[in-house]
Amino acid sequence: MAVGDVSRGVFVHPLASEIVERIRPIWGIEHALSLMGWDGRTYMPRGGVEERAIARAELLVLRRRLLLNPETVKLVENAEEAVDDMNEFERGLVRVLKRNIRIESSLPDELVYERAKVTEEAVAVWENAKSSGNFAAFKPYLERIVELARKMAEHLGYEEHPYDALLDLFEEGLTTKKVEALFNSIMPTLKLTLEKVRASGYYPERHPLEDVEYQVPVMDKVNREVLSLIGFPWERGRLDVSAHPFTISLGIGDVRITTRYEGVDFRHTLYAVIHEFGHALYELQIDEALKATPLASGVSLGVHESQSRFWENIVGRSPAFVEAVSPLLRKHLGFLEGYSDEELYRYFNIVRPGPIRVEADELTYNFHIYLRFKIEKELIEGSLKVDEVPEAWNSLMEELLGVRPKNYKEGVLQDIHWSSGAIGYFPTYTIGTVLAAQILYRYESVKGGFYDSVRSRDFAPIREYLRESIHRWGSTFKPEELIEKGLGEPMNPEYYNRYIMRKFLEVKLP
Amino acid sequence: MAVGDVSRGVFVHPLASEIVERIRPIWGIEHALSLMGWDGRTYMPRGGVEERAIARAELLVLRRRLLLNPETVKLVENAEEAVDDMNEFERGLVRVLKRNIRIESSLPDELVYERAKVTEEAVAVWENAKSSGNFAAFKPYLERIVELARKMAEHLGYEEHPYDALLDLFEEGLTTKKVEALFNSIMPTLKLTLEKVRASGYYPERHPLEDVEYQVPVMDKVNREVLSLIGFPWERGRLDVSAHPFTISLGIGDVRITTRYEGVDFRHTLYAVIHEFGHALYELQIDEALKATPLASGVSLGVHESQSRFWENIVGRSPAFVEAVSPLLRKHLGFLEGYSDEELYRYFNIVRPGPIRVEADELTYNFHIYLRFKIEKELIEGSLKVDEVPEAWNSLMEELLGVRPKNYKEGVLQDIHWSSGAIGYFPTYTIGTVLAAQILYRYESVKGGFYDSVRSRDFAPIREYLRESIHRWGSTFKPEELIEKGLGEPMNPEYYNRYIMRKFLEVKLP
Repeated sequence: MAVGDVSRGVFVHPLASEIVERIRPIWGIEHALSLMGWDGRTYMPRGGVEERAIARAELLVLRRRLLLNPETVKLVENAEEAVDDMNEFERGLVRVLKRNIRIESSLPDELVYERAKVTEEAVAVWENAKSSGNFAAFKPYLERIVELARKMAEHLGYEEHPYDALLDLFEEGLTTKKVEALFNSIMPTLKLTLEKVRASGYYPERHPLEDVEYQVPVMDKVNREVLSLIGFPWERGRLDVSAHPFTISLGIGDVRITTRYEGVDFRHTLYAVIHEFGHALYELQIDEALKATPLASGVSLGVHESQSRFWENIVGRSPAFVEAVSPLLRKHLGFLEGYSDEELYRYFNIVRPGPIRVEADELTYNFHIYLRFKIEKELIEGSLKVDEVPEAWNSLMEELLGVRPKNYKEGVLQDIHWSSGAIGYFPTYTIGTVLAAQILYRYESVKGGFYDSVRSRDFAPIREYLRESIHRWGSTFKPEELIEKGLGEPMNPEYYNRYIMRKFLEVKLP
Repeated sequence: MAVGDVSRGVFVHPLASEIVERIRPIWGIEHALSLMGWDGRTYMPRGGVEERAIARAELLVLRRRLLLNPETVKLVENAEEAVDDMNEFERGLVRVLKRNIRIESSLPDELVYERAKVTEEAVAVWENAKSSGNFAAFKPYLERIVELARKMAEHLGYEEHPYDALLDLFEEGLTTKKVEALFNSIMPTLKLTLEKVRASGYYPERHPLEDVEYQVPVMDKVNREVLSLIGFPWERGRLDVSAHPFTISLGIGDVRITTRYEGVDFRHTLYAVIHEFGHALYELQIDEALKATPLASGVSLGVHESQSRFWENIVGRSPAFVEAVSPLLRKHLGFLEGYSDEELYRYFNIVRPGPIRVEADELTYNFHIYLRFKIEKELIEGSLKVDEVPEAWNSLMEELLGVRPKNYKEGVLQDIHWSSGAIGYFPTYTIGTVLAAQILYRYESVKGGFYDSVRSRDFAPIREYLRESIHRWGSTFKPEELIEKGLGEPMNPEYYNRYIMRKFLEVKLP
């Protein structure tokens, strides 16, 4: 195997090709960390936890040390001065490395290590606190995590709001102001639509299929057939089982997804699989020339989520998809006898305001994100104390969705994110939802016949469109540039509003 | 997690504890490489091969770079001067590192990279050559590999024979002379015993159970129950499926084994599992204080193989074990009806000279190793050319076992070892076989009642004995020191001769 030849033809500028060679050990470490992440959540025996944590910590330190190596930093600085002579991939390489170096070098070692230590403990504490609903146990950890996040924001720097520095970690270029503008654009439509939907009753709040149990091996077969139908390349990926579904890329040729099987209410495992397929397809369709470089991954969480939501909601929860997939479902799931395609569509599109984000439907999901955004922003700016979060959470939930969590497990303790240190992450879910709708409208205006393709099980043109407009570039362009280049205009939440109103107010039967 | 505390209490000398901290990234890399090895042979999709090879190559280079870092080397040199003030673990740490540094530093970068490149290609070429029986395709690779091995021997240095340098890589301290002495001690007994066994006919050459097919899921259940019976700790390990059975340690808390299912002749998969259990138990019973250090692995291939052969042959192929395990087998394998325990014992102990090493029985196995040892030694000293190997192989096989391979697939192309660069590895199998018998006799003289324990399914005292005498020390002592310390005397092949004669000539019925 000629490692040096992997990316030939794309990284031709001498400085760019020198960088690619020089930093490949970092890619090797990241590959190993991804594999550890996959293994830890799928097959690792319990006894492996402690040594895995040691190995992981060592590799993270090594990665940081290699990235901040003075010669590497100098090389990237030199390359930056030469970007005018570089192609778009080479410029992308320099941009991504400069950003990673800026982030890593602005955070002092002690802060990085303290954060790693605190969050590792906090995740374990949170798990226990969640199952017993005991916020007091988690509170001191959340306080330290918020404190560390505020320190991080100061080190990272920001122009207007300290929360901006954290948002940027997950979505390059995102700011508090942009998130506020985004919610201001979509919340009125969501509120209005939700009211009307609940008044009309077409989309049910409950459906008998929710209580129907399935056989796990049968459902596993269904999931695999659905994945084959929409085009999952089995020779370049896997489907496994984990407590929480996820996607992990070990390279363009090996992208793995997971789902879980609760044994009842089969839409959950089915839509988890379709969601993760969207994430996986992004990683699988990155240009092979970017293999084993820092550009060989999705550019941001928001763009990534746009891909998963696109397949889950825009494709998967449409009447056309129900028509496409229902023969397959009926073949394996005997209990569907007596349910028409329309009934299946209604089951897949239950609209029920509830306290739990991961159980939320298409219409109420963004209310959950808005709540977390508000609380995070106030925590970081210091206008809300950790002490006050549980009550703020419950009141806001009641105000937004008319639901008051019965306990902290259903409230402030439901998400893992904060315990793992991820503050500033949630808004990327909303960006993803909004972009997913925009992709649909762009597809319709450029190519047309989207739902005809879905209905006739012809998913290849859709995959190709995504490859050409988004996937192939990996992290070459900043998220905002990629959107503008791929979709012909910046992110525009009006498409999402239009999609929501069309779907939920002008009901089209399957 | 307090990484620094892991090994507290064992590495107390300031230089030793500094070393342990300093080299932990190497352990982290080795953990990652092990996980990649496991994944690559169990679950990795085909599309992942190329990027996995890149990541692996990068981590191997990083590992070498960290080990040969001048500050690390200096620290180990300083520690060496202080060994008189150190405990046995600290001295073991210094010995292992000094040895690793000596090996790595004596091999120039170019040689290491060329070897990695050649062997990676050669394994792929060998696979094809084997399936088509085409030695000519593999020949140029074997020539380069032998040439590289001879170069390595020169760089590594040796006192008497260049092959010594290669033997030492797999078994610290092993020499050509010692291997010759070993074979001289055991071959006459094996030859004589084999003749007598074939004349007597008690141990069959063929058994009807060889042709009986099994259901894979049922056999998987049997294997798991047998593992539970002999004491595999499921919370600290796994059983998976791979093309060739293997054991891999990701740490003392996570040791994974595999087997394969051919669907017929169930003793193969059953004894593969028992064999790998022996390897796994060694890694699982290393003292926890050695966690995440270079001492946390079995000390050599020979000692490792003694553990696997001990469980496979000394325990597993005994009449007492047949008695212990047969109710479990009968419960699941309906086709055993009508076969007595004695018949099962005979089936498990078929003696049939054949051309294939991995299918060889307890009595003929070492003939295969002797053949490879002779050929390797002559290749390395230059008295045999690669051209001449196929014929030398076939003639020697005929001379030793009266069997002439029908083709090169059954002959010179059967093993993966040479294609992967492993020349000097085979003799460790014989060391393992011989030591396994010695452990039995030592157990009998120190504790007694070995086969009573086996018969009554009481494997805990056996596991405990192995832990105390061998396992707990990891790589703390050189193989020869460990044997003498653990078994009260140096390796002595007479125990093996005694075992062979007792088992095969004084037949005890189950």
